[in-house]
Amino acid sequence: MSVPAALRWVEPPAGPAVELLDQTRLPAAEEFLTCTDVPQLVAAIGRLAVRGAPLLGMAGAYGVALAAFRADDVEAAAAAIAAARPTAVNLAVGVNRALTAWRAAELGDGATPRQGAAPGASAALAEARSIAAQEAESSAAMARHGLALVPDGARVLTHCNTGSLATAGEGTAFAVIRAAHRAGKLTRLWIDETRPLLQGARLTAWEAGRSGIPHSLLADGAAASLMASGQVDLVLTGADRIAADGSVANKIGTYGLAVLARHHRVPFVVVAPASTVDLGTPDGAAIPVEHRPAAELAIVAGQQVAPSGTEAYNPAFDVTPPSLVTAIVTERGVIQPVTPGSLRDLGAYMSLRTAS
Amino acid sequence: MSVPAALRWVEPPAGPAVELLDQTRLPAAEEFLTCTDVPQLVAAIGRLAVRGAPLLGMAGAYGVALAAFRADDVEAAAAAIAAARPTAVNLAVGVNRALTAWRAAELGDGATPRQGAAPGASAALAEARSIAAQEAESSAAMARHGLALVPDGARVLTHCNTGSLATAGEGTAFAVIRAAHRAGKLTRLWIDETRPLLQGARLTAWEAGRSGIPHSLLADGAAASLMASGQVDLVLTGADRIAADGSVANKIGTYGLAVLARHHRVPFVVVAPASTVDLGTPDGAAIPVEHRPAAELAIVAGQQVAPSGTEAYNPAFDVTPPSLVTAIVTERGVIQPVTPGSLRDLGAYMSLRTAS
Repeated sequence: MSVPAALRWVEPPAGPAVELLDQTRLPAAEEFLTCTDVPQLVAAIGRLAVRGAPLLGMAGAYGVALAAFRADDVEAAAAAIAAARPTAVNLAVGVNRALTAWRAAELGDGATPRQGAAPGASAALAEARSIAAQEAESSAAMARHGLALVPDGARVLTHCNTGSLATAGEGTAFAVIRAAHRAGKLTRLWIDETRPLLQGARLTAWEAGRSGIPHSLLADGAAASLMASGQVDLVLTGADRIAADGSVANKIGTYGLAVLARHHRVPFVVVAPASTVDLGTPDGAAIPVEHRPAAELAIVAGQQVAPSGTEAYNPAFDVTPPSLVTAIVTERGVIQPVTPGSLRDLGAYMSLRTAS
Repeated sequence: MSVPAALRWVEPPAGPAVELLDQTRLPAAEEFLTCTDVPQLVAAIGRLAVRGAPLLGMAGAYGVALAAFRADDVEAAAAAIAAARPTAVNLAVGVNRALTAWRAAELGDGATPRQGAAPGASAALAEARSIAAQEAESSAAMARHGLALVPDGARVLTHCNTGSLATAGEGTAFAVIRAAHRAGKLTRLWIDETRPLLQGARLTAWEAGRSGIPHSLLADGAAASLMASGQVDLVLTGADRIAADGSVANKIGTYGLAVLARHHRVPFVVVAPASTVDLGTPDGAAIPVEHRPAAELAIVAGQQVAPSGTEAYNPAFDVTPPSLVTAIVTERGVIQPVTPGSLRDLGAYMSLRTAS
């Protein structure tokens, strides 16, 4: 058993193409979409067949390479891909990295851009592959550092989806979980179903099954009694943004888990790339939280489960204060305890790396 | 606007039968099930078409009357009904009350039990009707006592369904909420959707709408951030069983709310009839917790949302220790603080009443 790649570049003669695992069909079916042109890729991104910030960055970069190999108008294709999900910053970043590589190769001599495969197409493809390799390397480093925090025989509780469906590697928190499983340290993975969008049930349970990890699904509201029964040794989650004071914004439900973990004396560990730390956001109160439509709660699997017109409190994220976070694992190592000082050190490193 | 009766006895010629509002079909449809024999009723109880502690007590008693009118083996029928939901103490109590009335009427002269309709059937039916009348009266008394604990302008969070779909009156916690609304003290009702069976979304939101109460639905995992934002003044829930030490068994997710309420200094109040207190159960550990099938999590609205065959941790209830319970409201008054002594006093009163 293994997890199929969520995104793959297809060489000629079958390609050039970008092959995607259609995540909207999981877990009912494992269907692959082969995008042989940019409009197909843009449509797939738009309908969330491919999702997850790092994976979107890769999709964007490979999309630019695809346009270049097809001898399309690469600048127009890049703009179309980046606009497929305007709020997904990683998508635009991935597109721009491949586009910059393409431009450098095509225009490096100052000549008029040529239509055709080489050398811009090869440069764009190399950049896309470099992004994928960096993601995989970062994921492996997080797994390595996080593994040290997993006790032998651990029963780990996780929330939402943080695995290989969202990145080129094995993910963030889920990469630590897979490493613990390979090391023989994991007795059981508990998976919060993660309402309202059920990423735990739909995606994480599927990835755990494909990875051969013993796992059980639970309603988000059952985590408290599970902890009280002494069956949780560690909580591992990802993060969407980490403020300068160590406050962690992540999928709604994460903060409640952190409070419960503290009450039951269970370590609560966040796994996220260092790029998630945003020193421009001073604290939790400064993190903007997106509120999503009531329909996400009222309509489940296409069926109306609450009376039509019911109002809802439906934030996409919540914010966990640093006092409840036992440790933050990044590709650079483990931050423990989580303090403004330790975050500042990491942020300074990131700024240096970005500037270099 | 009004709420239709959740349970009704049907006289001949249409009956004898027990008519139930099929709560699994709400809010999409208001469909009624007519149970003309005990296996139909047991099946309805098992699949939660009828639910809620007081209503289960009524269903149990009417079920015994139904068996008696049908000239079934009443003792066997009573045992089958009581076993349909083993954690629901009210179900067994209702069954036993009707069974005791039946036995007294049938065997009062010391003769061999007779098969047939009268006089045991009439006695069982009279006892079931008496239970229903007591429930309505008890609900009104709980509302009166609980109202004193609701601050002006209160924003109340509730879990599961505790309204008139669960009893003959206006319910337990929901009766307090309706009383607070009528008294102009309620600013907003926050309703946990209550996974896995979504009683909050399907039933409580429907009842709140029918009662004209301003309300918002939330994912169970969103309660923590709602409390952190300072928008919850009081948590009100029901109870399925209260042990002698004050431990409260209630719908899965209740215990987590109690931990969160304590963390955010929000009062956590349980509203339940005195019959819910079971002095024969010494503490929380002695309360049997029913574990339900994984399919309740894996299949939502008829659609497979988790991979087929996924294991699950799916207890129907959790147990909240008395240290986290601010007060227990019964029809007898308010118990605060919740101690073994205060519960014993209530239990002694109940024993006296039952014996009389």
